[in-house]
Amino acid sequence: MFSDEYFMRLALKEAQNAYEQDEVPVGAIVVHSNRIIAKSHNLTETLNDVTAHAEMQAITSSANFLGGKYLTGCIMYITLEPCVMCAGALAWSQISKVVIGARDPQRGFINKKLTLHPKTEIISGVLENECSQLIKDFFKTKRP
Amino acid sequence: MFSDEYFMRLALKEAQNAYEQDEVPVGAIVVHSNRIIAKSHNLTETLNDVTAHAEMQAITSSANFLGGKYLTGCIMYITLEPCVMCAGALAWSQISKVVIGARDPQRGFINKKLTLHPKTEIISGVLENECSQLIKDFFKTKRP
Repeated sequence: MFSDEYFMRLALKEAQNAYEQDEVPVGAIVVHSNRIIAKSHNLTETLNDVTAHAEMQAITSSANFLGGKYLTGCIMYITLEPCVMCAGALAWSQISKVVIGARDPQRGFINKKLTLHPKTEIISGVLENECSQLIKDFFKTKRP
Repeated sequence: MFSDEYFMRLALKEAQNAYEQDEVPVGAIVVHSNRIIAKSHNLTETLNDVTAHAEMQAITSSANFLGGKYLTGCIMYITLEPCVMCAGALAWSQISKVVIGARDPQRGFINKKLTLHPKTEIISGVLENECSQLIKDFFKTKRP
């Protein structure tokens, strides 16, 4: 039951919440010992803050929950490949695993040749089509 | 009077405040129309949050002050070259100018071949020795 697809579907639900609030639909879930310790979605428009990406909020919430700044033992499920800012934050966090839905060739960290922490496992392509379709649908309404 | 050195000295004062709180001594000041709209220093230990770098707080505060998420017309003075996370955030912010004190060859964004927004002017080396010395002094107490 607690598969990568299971948790990515919850992250996708967060992304859908963002969509309904007219935010770029990206969602994140953080799991520790099979327990969800943070869920978030992009809030840059609502908060008027370019730093309010789903991942940034999820990192801050998780650290707050755990009582320490390092996310060792945590897995983040994120519907879109993290940008440079979020990749930098994930690297500082020393998170154990990052599971990505859709790739972001233009804005994502992978094509920028950035790496996360050496101990961080990265998996990509979980529910890729659904995660990607949601973003495409959103921008179709914005740039018709 | 309102020279780059003038504002960098204020950023350095923020960094000294960080030092006194046992935080890695990095400080930032944001200026808009010759007026300081944000000042901050690193708070990662105090807040238990790897995202609480001086730049991240200064971006959020400035956007809050201006009532919009873009920092067009703003200058950030920062005592240490921004890391990948902060460079990514500064890029999203479309800030007009970034003035750096000391370089950070290992953790800074420049050697990682990252760029900020195309419209962002970058100046480096303002009060470089003082900014750099503060960091060196701090780590000397940590790793004797």
